[in-house]
Amino acid sequence: MTTAKALHDLTATEARQMIRTGAITALDLTRACLSRIAARDGTLRAWVTVNPRAEAEAATITPDDPRPLAGVPVAVKDMIDTGDMPTTHNSPLYGGHRPAEDAPCVQILRAAGAIILGKTDTTEFAAAGRNAATGNPADPARTSGGSSAGSAAAVGDRHVPLAIGTQTGGSTIRPASFCGAVALKPSWGLISTEGVKRYSTSFDTVGLFARSVADIALLADVYALPPAADPAARPRLGLTRTPHFARAEPETEALFEGLAARLAPVADVAPFDLPEGFEAVDTLHRCVMHTEGAVAFLNLARTRGALLHADFHDRVNLGAGFSQRDRYEAYDRLAALRVELERRMQGFDALIAPSAPGFAPIGRGPGDPVFNALWTAMQVPVLNLPLGGCDLPLGLSLIGTRAGDRALIKTGATLAPALA
Amino acid sequence: MTTAKALHDLTATEARQMIRTGAITALDLTRACLSRIAARDGTLRAWVTVNPRAEAEAATITPDDPRPLAGVPVAVKDMIDTGDMPTTHNSPLYGGHRPAEDAPCVQILRAAGAIILGKTDTTEFAAAGRNAATGNPADPARTSGGSSAGSAAAVGDRHVPLAIGTQTGGSTIRPASFCGAVALKPSWGLISTEGVKRYSTSFDTVGLFARSVADIALLADVYALPPAADPAARPRLGLTRTPHFARAEPETEALFEGLAARLAPVADVAPFDLPEGFEAVDTLHRCVMHTEGAVAFLNLARTRGALLHADFHDRVNLGAGFSQRDRYEAYDRLAALRVELERRMQGFDALIAPSAPGFAPIGRGPGDPVFNALWTAMQVPVLNLPLGGCDLPLGLSLIGTRAGDRALIKTGATLAPALA
Repeated sequence: MTTAKALHDLTATEARQMIRTGAITALDLTRACLSRIAARDGTLRAWVTVNPRAEAEAATITPDDPRPLAGVPVAVKDMIDTGDMPTTHNSPLYGGHRPAEDAPCVQILRAAGAIILGKTDTTEFAAAGRNAATGNPADPARTSGGSSAGSAAAVGDRHVPLAIGTQTGGSTIRPASFCGAVALKPSWGLISTEGVKRYSTSFDTVGLFARSVADIALLADVYALPPAADPAARPRLGLTRTPHFARAEPETEALFEGLAARLAPVADVAPFDLPEGFEAVDTLHRCVMHTEGAVAFLNLARTRGALLHADFHDRVNLGAGFSQRDRYEAYDRLAALRVELERRMQGFDALIAPSAPGFAPIGRGPGDPVFNALWTAMQVPVLNLPLGGCDLPLGLSLIGTRAGDRALIKTGATLAPALA
Repeated sequence: MTTAKALHDLTATEARQMIRTGAITALDLTRACLSRIAARDGTLRAWVTVNPRAEAEAATITPDDPRPLAGVPVAVKDMIDTGDMPTTHNSPLYGGHRPAEDAPCVQILRAAGAIILGKTDTTEFAAAGRNAATGNPADPARTSGGSSAGSAAAVGDRHVPLAIGTQTGGSTIRPASFCGAVALKPSWGLISTEGVKRYSTSFDTVGLFARSVADIALLADVYALPPAADPAARPRLGLTRTPHFARAEPETEALFEGLAARLAPVADVAPFDLPEGFEAVDTLHRCVMHTEGAVAFLNLARTRGALLHADFHDRVNLGAGFSQRDRYEAYDRLAALRVELERRMQGFDALIAPSAPGFAPIGRGPGDPVFNALWTAMQVPVLNLPLGGCDLPLGLSLIGTRAGDRALIKTGATLAPALA
């Protein structure tokens, strides 16, 4: 850590140390983040609401505050309820909507001392419909990805050290890859999704964004992710291109050709054979997501029909062609594949796989979730690690076993320097 | 249907026909229900809030209103968000809590023309802690069961023709059995649980209460439960005492001894062999419920610690002894058992099993969920049918296959007259 670093460049872990020692105040940090937003967000458009009470809240934080995030600014995706700021889901149906209270995942941040700096843009209902307006920090003509567009861009562009988002297909890991952020899609079900607009009960997951693996570990403490046995000091990694590598761009192909050599100083890399039938996971994921979406959006179709985007009527009408009975068969097949995947992962500390087909595309689209939906469907934790030496941000997915999130984070800390 | 029936005794289907023909108005019906509440609820205590605008809302319903529930009063468990009435979850932490909007499952009722007559009492957070204050319609010294205490009692005592509640273990089917109500615990995931206070993501289910099978079919339409192939005209039923019949009371033992003979005029009854390993389902269900509960209540433990009932601290602290890793292994084992259960159910239209150990116990406890949690864990639909000829209310569980809710309802319609 160098004291020459601008305050808005600090990680949460660095900032906490400086607040504790009195080198900076929480108010200094919040003001630096607000200045950065003022300077950058006219172009980037990561934020839909900036908390007008952020400075007042930061001014209450004392140096001796023992809470793990005391005075740390955090961005919250606008899919997640906040009691003090509107929560719009980027839907015209929820313009100015003010929930009665914070979602549990936000309450937990505030209880840890975080300053909720504001709300970040999202693909409509984190699903379809309208794109976020957010550009890419490295090239404003490109997308930040979706659906957690604003959270990924705000962290990647150093407006804020931490953010939370969501993932149902690839909405945390893919934008993190596009924006150069570290991110964790935890094992399904370890962070409450209550107060997060529902899309797919079986897959909706709160995702975490940061600029260092140490900061992800800090958030793992805050959210009480379960203890896990330590991984090997020299991790054993299983490399998989997934059944969908034909959709990888040249930059991802080049990355994977050189990956084993790049990691050789710190890890053992071996090929990993996915379970038989794994090529069906992407379709099974879509089946569950669309049929659960039919249930999730029925109320809006019934009450706000003409104003609801056609994409959500399509979900309610099962436009993708899956029936509700298909859903239960998909549950069963996915469950059997989870068992076989974790059986094959014995002897490996983690898998490595693409986080996205390639660099962020031109435009504002969310990007292709094909390399993410697989792991969401498997319920396993995924850590995105940014890669150095690329023309544009690009990430690598590190995949663990369910409830092994903390082991995955430790493996990530070992690998990150070799990838940066 | 006899015109001599008191208005508060009408089923929803009967009431709709009389409103349509102009024999009664929606306002007449709402006033009759309010009078019944005024006469009975001082003792019964099913309701925690009665909608002060109910008559005004009912007065807007015209005879030609085509909506399926136009003018039908419905009770809503106080675990479910309503934008116009407090939603307390029977927790001192939520006294007077006013959500910003109705839960989707309530929006859908209102869009169908229902009059939300008020909120009904519940076990705290539909889980543990405080009992509901509600007594049993047949004997006020006895419990109405839990956690959907007030919804079951309000329907059983004819305050209202329809109600919604929830089930995570046995919170719909068991109180329905105790109170003499028909009830459906739908296949998991077919009615949105957004806006329902979270306990266990994998099991929380919106449950439906009525006084006839036809009214359950009406609610199935309103909630767009999926189409299913018709069952056999003479249903083939698999009789199971479950692995826990040692906990049945004498009245349930007597019921099951005579059941095949009682059903012989309308159905074929054969013994049903549960899958190997099924005796573990109750423990696996508790593992998932408690470990998911640890996530669901973390925010309250962190923010309202001293005020939160010890039962919920116990969930957060994993006091039942299950780890989060155990949860994923429980998911996998339950998934495999679901496949085997439905394989064995081929050739049967439904299973029959106890809805509760016996009659409602003395007191206000929720009752033993052992005969319900099994089926909740299997994700399958369960229909409670009240039995005639008992000293106190007692129900029978009719169990279908996932997404086969409408077929189960049709089978229930065939069996109900033989059981009544």
